[in-house]
Amino acid sequence: MPGLTRRLAAFVAGSRFEDIPEQVRAHGERAIFNGFGTALGGLSDTAVERLAATLGAYSGKATATVIGHHRRFDPPTAAFLNAAATNVFDFDDTHAGTIIHPTAPVAPVVFALAETQRFTGAEVLHAFILGVEVACRLGNAISPGHYDRGWHITASCGIFGAAVAASKLLGLGETQIVWALGNASAQSSGLVETLGHMAKSVGVGGAARNGLLSALMARGGVAGPPEPIEGPRGFLKVTCDVPRPDLVDRDLGTHWEILRNMFKPYPCGVVLNPVIDACLAARSLPGFDGANVASVTVRGNPLLKARADRPDVTTGREAQVSAQHAVAVSLMRGTAGAADFSDAAVADPAITTVRDKVASVGVDTAIPVEAAELLITFSDGTTTNVKEAMATGSLGRPMDDAALRAKFAALADYGCPGLNAALLAQSLWRLRDLPDAGAVMDLARPAN
Amino acid sequence: MPGLTRRLAAFVAGSRFEDIPEQVRAHGERAIFNGFGTALGGLSDTAVERLAATLGAYSGKATATVIGHHRRFDPPTAAFLNAAATNVFDFDDTHAGTIIHPTAPVAPVVFALAETQRFTGAEVLHAFILGVEVACRLGNAISPGHYDRGWHITASCGIFGAAVAASKLLGLGETQIVWALGNASAQSSGLVETLGHMAKSVGVGGAARNGLLSALMARGGVAGPPEPIEGPRGFLKVTCDVPRPDLVDRDLGTHWEILRNMFKPYPCGVVLNPVIDACLAARSLPGFDGANVASVTVRGNPLLKARADRPDVTTGREAQVSAQHAVAVSLMRGTAGAADFSDAAVADPAITTVRDKVASVGVDTAIPVEAAELLITFSDGTTTNVKEAMATGSLGRPMDDAALRAKFAALADYGCPGLNAALLAQSLWRLRDLPDAGAVMDLARPAN
Repeated sequence: MPGLTRRLAAFVAGSRFEDIPEQVRAHGERAIFNGFGTALGGLSDTAVERLAATLGAYSGKATATVIGHHRRFDPPTAAFLNAAATNVFDFDDTHAGTIIHPTAPVAPVVFALAETQRFTGAEVLHAFILGVEVACRLGNAISPGHYDRGWHITASCGIFGAAVAASKLLGLGETQIVWALGNASAQSSGLVETLGHMAKSVGVGGAARNGLLSALMARGGVAGPPEPIEGPRGFLKVTCDVPRPDLVDRDLGTHWEILRNMFKPYPCGVVLNPVIDACLAARSLPGFDGANVASVTVRGNPLLKARADRPDVTTGREAQVSAQHAVAVSLMRGTAGAADFSDAAVADPAITTVRDKVASVGVDTAIPVEAAELLITFSDGTTTNVKEAMATGSLGRPMDDAALRAKFAALADYGCPGLNAALLAQSLWRLRDLPDAGAVMDLARPAN
Repeated sequence: MPGLTRRLAAFVAGSRFEDIPEQVRAHGERAIFNGFGTALGGLSDTAVERLAATLGAYSGKATATVIGHHRRFDPPTAAFLNAAATNVFDFDDTHAGTIIHPTAPVAPVVFALAETQRFTGAEVLHAFILGVEVACRLGNAISPGHYDRGWHITASCGIFGAAVAASKLLGLGETQIVWALGNASAQSSGLVETLGHMAKSVGVGGAARNGLLSALMARGGVAGPPEPIEGPRGFLKVTCDVPRPDLVDRDLGTHWEILRNMFKPYPCGVVLNPVIDACLAARSLPGFDGANVASVTVRGNPLLKARADRPDVTTGREAQVSAQHAVAVSLMRGTAGAADFSDAAVADPAITTVRDKVASVGVDTAIPVEAAELLITFSDGTTTNVKEAMATGSLGRPMDDAALRAKFAALADYGCPGLNAALLAQSLWRLRDLPDAGAVMDLARPAN
């Protein structure tokens, strides 16, 4: 039996769009739709703006759109910037189990290629689905040790997904796909240490750009080793103490990991979803008055405390992983969108006051990660207890199409009000029927 | 006391050329000289040609020279290709202890910048020395575990050296240098699994390009974490099980790691140096006749067998780590240059015959890595025993200036016969006196 990398490459090379189940196609379209939305929301973030200014100075022939920008860039640079924008708020999709954000490094690559050469929407969707599948399966094989060790798995696995998606779209053969994965293995990177800092986007952007280049290099004959993934000094063993290579291709083509991919209702750490749900529910209770809140206690899975017990925050980025801020903003404003996790929201006196009243983040191992409990004590001594059993956006309660459309519209309005977002949304929603996927990107550039 | 990254950044920001001892300056000039030579030799390698073709399609404004090429590229792309060419034969310099090839990822970055903005030779040399110093010190802190785990240390540490060198030349302040190191930490990569394949050069080239971009991003305000190197999920801990952070800045500014950097006389694995020395010595013994060689036995340090016991080789790349090929070609031809480790040399019937006669690679833990023993049995039953105690190119017997100049001339003639290599050599040899270091690159482009 040939090696793991070779088997993956054969699967990708041989996959036909007809082989992709309807449920998988539909999820792929929604993932891309959601990703365009988060990119529109993220494009005006300072990190993305600064990266665009620096990298733009070295862009080659400007054929590829950065979502929401007037200006175009060369395909690798556009892929970098779109990946960075898609992920900058951590508002993009999340694969259950690995916490990979799979769309950010993969979708920008197929759309950059679709502006260089004509591909149908179905071809682009197909390549995207395969890229996401490979990234998430690699993540399964090295989770949780890989992330725990300090690898930012979105970037480190995402580059392989980007390489696979580009390879499929470019029509590379089996051996060239092995090479593309080898070239990706030589560039896989991204550190958890950078999370909460602009440098996070350097890793995620690099995954898209370098994954695309890995496939282009393979097409150009740049050969890699035969076993970059499973070899003795290959990706799995080097970046994980106890990898499970068998998980990479188990039930490949019958079980689809993309179906374990979740869309986020709120632009913050996924552990905060049930907390925000509970706050929004509390706020809508009869007689609730934010002015009377004396203290708030949150209880949840140990991961909630580990990832998000952060009482002192000074930036929007920090607020994204602060239970204290999430509670304050959702209780006081009744919303939890991009504007609610901005630097301005963090500095809003109405929010800081309540943030200081969130006494502690309690831990209960019996509470699953999708659930949380809230105890609000009011100034008159009365209390309200709210429990969220299954957070919005979890596998058990996914966002529905209407919620996804509303999220898209809100993000477009927040980050790129000059764009005709409805037209873009309409086009993305029927991606698989488009004769020319590149046309989507024309709709992603504002008119002026 | 501030953190390790901050202390490194302060050292780099505060360093003055006057602080660099004469011996260190001289070594730096020789390292650059040697690196230009190996780049000239490597530029016509298939991997470098294919990388240039692929990346060239996305190059921005063409201001930077690829050594030996007519055509120019944008600075990040030129840095990538020069790093790849410098290292492709593993004929570039090697830092004792870490086996980092430090010049490949660092020198291309300072010369690419020197074509964008005017810098003196002394400024370029100074930035280069600091970059090499940081790369090698990071390597010390994670050796040998990092490489043993599977990280190609030239790429994974080289990116930090590239970032530091670019930061110094661009005049970044302390905080920006911390950011540059953070941006580099998000892109550090390179797998041992790729060695012997073209994908190796993807990692090494990426280290130069991405290190340069790390500094440019930092200048553009892309902020990184405060402790990308020493943090709990920082570079040292993530890529090494038992890092020694104290080694990074011990005696910083008084002890110079670049002085432990070695130049290679032969374009192959460093463990083969004493073997080739012994073969060349045997060949020059009175009465030696290659036609009468019946069998050859090699004995050396366990590393020799571990890295280079490779009887069956089909490509020049494999030959670079084959004791059998090294013995055959040096005994038969009396030379061990770039042409002797090419695909053509591997296929040469005069070489293959003798390669098959190298019976075994014996191990003796009492033999240091710089030494080797050779036992040649001739067809008449007589034997010759040759011992090499201290290989050419080792710290104990470095290549002298004449040997470095001869190596440069031979490599230029091999890889780029159309270039006036003597003029380039002359200019590089007095680098610190040049008013405009960019002028060197004008001499590195062939006239037609």
